[in-house]
Amino acid sequence: MPAAVAVGNGYGKLVGSTQVDELGVIETPILLTGTLSVFRAADALLTYLLDLDPNAISLNPIVGETNDGFLSDIRQRPITEQHVLGALASASAELPAEGCVGAGTGTAALGFKAGIGTSSRVAPTGVVGALVQANFSGVLRVLGTPIPAPPSPSEPTGNSCMIVLATDLPLDARQLGRIARRAIFALGLVGSDYAPGSGDYAIAFSTSRQPPMPEQDLKPVFQATMESVEEALLNSLTMAHTVTGFRGNTRYAVPHDYLLNRLSSAGVLH
Amino acid sequence: MPAAVAVGNGYGKLVGSTQVDELGVIETPILLTGTLSVFRAADALLTYLLDLDPNAISLNPIVGETNDGFLSDIRQRPITEQHVLGALASASAELPAEGCVGAGTGTAALGFKAGIGTSSRVAPTGVVGALVQANFSGVLRVLGTPIPAPPSPSEPTGNSCMIVLATDLPLDARQLGRIARRAIFALGLVGSDYAPGSGDYAIAFSTSRQPPMPEQDLKPVFQATMESVEEALLNSLTMAHTVTGFRGNTRYAVPHDYLLNRLSSAGVLH
Amino acid sequence: MPAAVAVGNGYGKLVGSTQVDELGVIETPILLTGTLSVFRAADALLTYLLDLDPNAISLNPIVGETNDGFLSDIRQRPITEQHVLGALASASAELPAEGCVGAGTGTAALGFKAGIGTSSRVAPTGVVGALVQANFSGVLRVLGTPIPAPPSPSEPTGNSCMIVLATDLPLDARQLGRIARRAIFALGLVGSDYAPGSGDYAIAFSTSRQPPMPEQDLKPVFQATMESVEEALLNSLTMAHTVTGFRGNTRYAVPHDYLLNRLSSAGVLH
Amino acid sequence: MPAAVAVGNGYGKLVGSTQVDELGVIETPILLTGTLSVFRAADALLTYLLDLDPNAISLNPIVGETNDGFLSDIRQRPITEQHVLGALASASAELPAEGCVGAGTGTAALGFKAGIGTSSRVAPTGVVGALVQANFSGVLRVLGTPIPAPPSPSEPTGNSCMIVLATDLPLDARQLGRIARRAIFALGLVGSDYAPGSGDYAIAFSTSRQPPMPEQDLKPVFQATMESVEEALLNSLTMAHTVTGFRGNTRYAVPHDYLLNRLSSAGVLH
Repeated sequence: MPAAVAVGNGYGKLVGSTQVDELGVIETPILLTGTLSVFRAADALLTYLLDLDPNAISLNPIVGETNDGFLSDIRQRPITEQHVLGALASASAELPAEGCVGAGTGTAALGFKAGIGTSSRVAPTGVVGALVQANFSGVLRVLGTPIPAPPSPSEPTGNSCMIVLATDLPLDARQLGRIARRAIFALGLVGSDYAPGSGDYAIAFSTSRQPPMPEQDLKPVFQATMESVEEALLNSLTMAHTVTGFRGNTRYAVPHDYLLNRLSSAGVLH
Repeated sequence: MPAAVAVGNGYGKLVGSTQVDELGVIETPILLTGTLSVFRAADALLTYLLDLDPNAISLNPIVGETNDGFLSDIRQRPITEQHVLGALASASAELPAEGCVGAGTGTAALGFKAGIGTSSRVAPTGVVGALVQANFSGVLRVLGTPIPAPPSPSEPTGNSCMIVLATDLPLDARQLGRIARRAIFALGLVGSDYAPGSGDYAIAFSTSRQPPMPEQDLKPVFQATMESVEEALLNSLTMAHTVTGFRGNTRYAVPHDYLLNRLSSAGVLH
Repeated sequence: MPAAVAVGNGYGKLVGSTQVDELGVIETPILLTGTLSVFRAADALLTYLLDLDPNAISLNPIVGETNDGFLSDIRQRPITEQHVLGALASASAELPAEGCVGAGTGTAALGFKAGIGTSSRVAPTGVVGALVQANFSGVLRVLGTPIPAPPSPSEPTGNSCMIVLATDLPLDARQLGRIARRAIFALGLVGSDYAPGSGDYAIAFSTSRQPPMPEQDLKPVFQATMESVEEALLNSLTMAHTVTGFRGNTRYAVPHDYLLNRLSSAGVLH
Repeated sequence: MPAAVAVGNGYGKLVGSTQVDELGVIETPILLTGTLSVFRAADALLTYLLDLDPNAISLNPIVGETNDGFLSDIRQRPITEQHVLGALASASAELPAEGCVGAGTGTAALGFKAGIGTSSRVAPTGVVGALVQANFSGVLRVLGTPIPAPPSPSEPTGNSCMIVLATDLPLDARQLGRIARRAIFALGLVGSDYAPGSGDYAIAFSTSRQPPMPEQDLKPVFQATMESVEEALLNSLTMAHTVTGFRGNTRYAVPHDYLLNRLSSAGVLH
């Protein structure tokens, strides 16, 4: 499938990007995991793919990661081949789970517990869907209203956001690159500070086999992209729950009543 | 001086970027003008530089542009060599003029008349200054509060934002590239929709001759960059006045009382 | 037309590249000229295009250049709008002139007088054509055989190679970027030293409107590209004649008998 | 250490490049292995590094690969953590072994058995050293003389060249990027056809802690780079021996007497 990667800030271990840059396609499922498990996940994906194709001798796994070392004992590299094969076996066309699941189990964003979020928008002739693994710093903004988190006693080093964009619009790799850059731009809408230690990547792919759409029709696609990423990022927070993990570290979910009160006070909710 | 260019959206005629990419320096003043005048401005800058150095046979002018074809009769390419030489002769270390001046005379942003804006922030060991030529689409946001413009009967094609960042912090070209990308990210904070027809560029340079600062000290520099660009963009609007130009087209400045009322209602101003 | 630019070494003033990177198309003729005339040529191209389209207010001229300051008094910026309009008016589908013509009048390569060269190769389902403006340093190699030039008393600063690739193969912008990079690689085949002060650019475009060809069919296209560029570079030398120019500077063409003798001695010619 | 990656053709699984692009440094040893073993090698490098630093939670392994699937049963992913830890434990400041060793055991280039090659050149104020893992297609050229290989009954899919450049010259990441691109250009000097299915990467790093050298002094450094890579590539062939491997496939080393005869006939050797 045609695909492209955009790099917002490259302090991350995304596996597979140079081949996507060159050939403009992805040839494997996309996995998301924790920083130090990225290579075990990529190798397990090879296991899966080598089994599928007995003649394959070249494969380009795509694996993104963010660093959840505050809540997870990541030095153990806990992800096993069985975890990966299980995840691949249970993949479905259902809506993805959100919040503290999978690679989002231990992540945090904007001072709150975060995780996986997803959203989509209908553009005139197709759909843009976003899935995010949110794990970045800044001050939360919801539709412009700041929702500051309580100060945290210890801030973990390393943070990142992985964004996956899927569309059935007929877009070629160059156009998908334009889309992917908008996903990066959308991080700012929810308050990302684009910190220097962040690995902020977006990968966009299209399921269409049709010739690429005209360039002049992209404006609503860009808007759909930015809106779906913004909403997916918010969902990654509001669907998460408070988690206590490694060494008793706790990361608190954004309290829904606090959030609603702030939005009401700002006149954003009525 | 060490320098770097970041491309947000490349639908623009920025002159000089590939050599900056390769060598990591600028060797001339940076000019801003209207789209179709960019080459006359670049050529006039050559005139200026060839006069300064009687042996020069290779020079890399940097000239940015945005398209003000709604208010200006840009097909006339009105900028002459005398305009450019005059601008260079009157350049000073004073604060730059803001609003409807120079290359900002005919620009518009976020539905309102815009122009040149400038701002700066003190980072721990130096200053980051931003100057913007604002001419892009979207819905204005001030500190998160949307300030929608009245619908415009005719929207000009082509829009862009040129951002110039100057710092006395010791940063090398790679680090300045990181800074320049944050300037692009800051466009979203004031409501840019990062439209497909926009030429959004940032060029950052440093006046320091010292060895580059440690990477781990960049976080406040990134924050200073994003804040100064955000404020410069707001200033480009609030310092502009309503202008009627080419073919009687009018672009209205954002009314200050409307702006203040909206901010008060949202609880942003007290 | 779909198009892409490859940068071998960016010490050059190529006009128009960032928009080609973003949109993957060219929308104007491609001009080649001398370094300091590049902006006057670009502005004259605007004159031509604004006349063609009375509604145009955004145009992205593509103008390449190399520095012929050893043989030409380039500080005079001798190219006028009339030169450019005349060149555009006389453009034809005939084979281009080679050697000391146009932007090649004053160039030199590999120690010898050079100029414009052109060549093409038939790939299985189409043609790849190359046109070069050769002006770079190194030691000439013809099919591997070194053909050293006599030492030159004064070496001009600044050198470059502009390469234009045209094809009727159905290639999209990403694929054309792959082709353009092969053109840069072909410079080494004739002895370029890829000097740090060189502006080596290739721009490739396709005249086809068909969906892009399969990636796995590109190998002969890459080969056709490298061979046509190699031959075009050699033609730029062998079609040139000795020229005495600015300040009496002389650049000698490669003597054909010397060349043939060297190739015979090496067993390359029989 | 300051570092940069250059991509000649991105059909390869190089691990770690985006972070090098962003930060301009390498923070781990560089490993080379076979295509499908790249993630096990990266994970084993993590094991090594996590042991060295009990607090590390973010590490960016650099692992390059080429595809030796003609001579090796790469679907077995034969590289174990013990292999990697053993290689790291036995690393020394001695000259590296060449030919059919390590990641070069199963590689082939230009129709002949190849492997690891190394070479270096003294530039005015320091040394540039190159190490290559050669595994690419084309027709061998030695100092310009073609040395065609006998036709091969079965050509393996997938090929690549990994190039590592080390220098003690004071170069920053941007300058190292310029060096790394010259390493890619040098592939053509020995006859690489820069095939579309190749993963051609160069990574350059500097051991110096001094401020970067002036840009105008880079010309001999570029020359040293191209010469050392060219010689390292030739060494990767001449130091290899014929190998019969997976499924009885045989790849023949270039016969030294054949090579010398061809060079003598061409007048290159006397």
